[in-house]
Amino acid sequence: MGGPDLEHLIGLFARLPGLGPRSARRIVLKLLCAPNASLLPLADALRAAAQAVRTCTICGNLDSSDPCAICAEPLREARICVVEGVADLWALERAHVYRGRYHILGGTLSALSGRGPEDLAIAPLLKRLEGGSVEEVILALSATVDGAATAHYLASRLQPYGVLVSRLAQGVPVGGALDVLDEGTLATALRARSAA
Amino acid sequence: MGGPDLEHLIGLFARLPGLGPRSARRIVLKLLCAPNASLLPLADALRAAAQAVRTCTICGNLDSSDPCAICAEPLREARICVVEGVADLWALERAHVYRGRYHILGGTLSALSGRGPEDLAIAPLLKRLEGGSVEEVILALSATVDGAATAHYLASRLQPYGVLVSRLAQGVPVGGALDVLDEGTLATALRARSAA
Repeated sequence: MGGPDLEHLIGLFARLPGLGPRSARRIVLKLLCAPNASLLPLADALRAAAQAVRTCTICGNLDSSDPCAICAEPLREARICVVEGVADLWALERAHVYRGRYHILGGTLSALSGRGPEDLAIAPLLKRLEGGSVEEVILALSATVDGAATAHYLASRLQPYGVLVSRLAQGVPVGGALDVLDEGTLATALRARSAA
Repeated sequence: MGGPDLEHLIGLFARLPGLGPRSARRIVLKLLCAPNASLLPLADALRAAAQAVRTCTICGNLDSSDPCAICAEPLREARICVVEGVADLWALERAHVYRGRYHILGGTLSALSGRGPEDLAIAPLLKRLEGGSVEEVILALSATVDGAATAHYLASRLQPYGVLVSRLAQGVPVGGALDVLDEGTLATALRARSAA
């Protein structure tokens, strides 16, 4: 249906995360209803982003400038929050609660996927600590087995630098109902309970 | 986050049907992880589709050629299936059960949205019947109040042409469980029951 150009375009959309053939078809039809208002601007924006966006050589963030806007900001606190990916950095920035810097690890250690320490940006992180001006490293990794293993490994690598190493708290998510939470979260929340 | 180019791109994705800011951000991050393998091909495919795809002047379908591949096919049966939009045509073609031609109406009559008969492609449909070679017009419109009103109106406009006018059957969808169906569908299915 629609000829090879359309089929090709639908196939590319269907490969994007969260989309499938059905939603891709719906999106392409919507775009074609208004080529000048939606389709061509999207094509131009993709091209512009491909040309403008680069990876920050300090922290690994994606931005139009290198160093990225966060690394270039002089007033950020002397803390580094270690996250797995750019999406995590963006999520923390949206929360407006953290005023330090970041470091993108590029994933977690994973025995199953064969990802070892040399596949992650650990050496650049240690290099950033060499000046001795960083006060704290916050490990903001996934609360999974791989995330916990990575945090444990990182803590041991960071120890010689004499920097404070902390982790995100685990517990009941804000707005979460107890009866739908898994046992692991409930057990953690109960163990880490605080005075009311 | 990510600078104005990325924010602009995320904004464009977030406007697409079925997507929001969250899924748009996820898609853009995924695209930026492999610009040459996924981002630039998507930009090129969008541009190619915008240039190649046109609306068929006979039926209203979207295709790389005008008349579209279906209208140009000589062996299609002398029936016209009237649908609201291109997505409906594609859905019927994917079912591989219909070997006739199509006509895209461009929506339904709607008192609420102020869409009258002159806003739909009714005149071109009547024009296609003038030769007298069309045997049947199948009204494949939504099973909504507006769809039923449009079908009723079309049937009256088609009457002078002496062509057989039919509609899609209504009832229990294949694979549908009775306990989740609405009362309207159940009532229709019961009224239109057939010998087992």
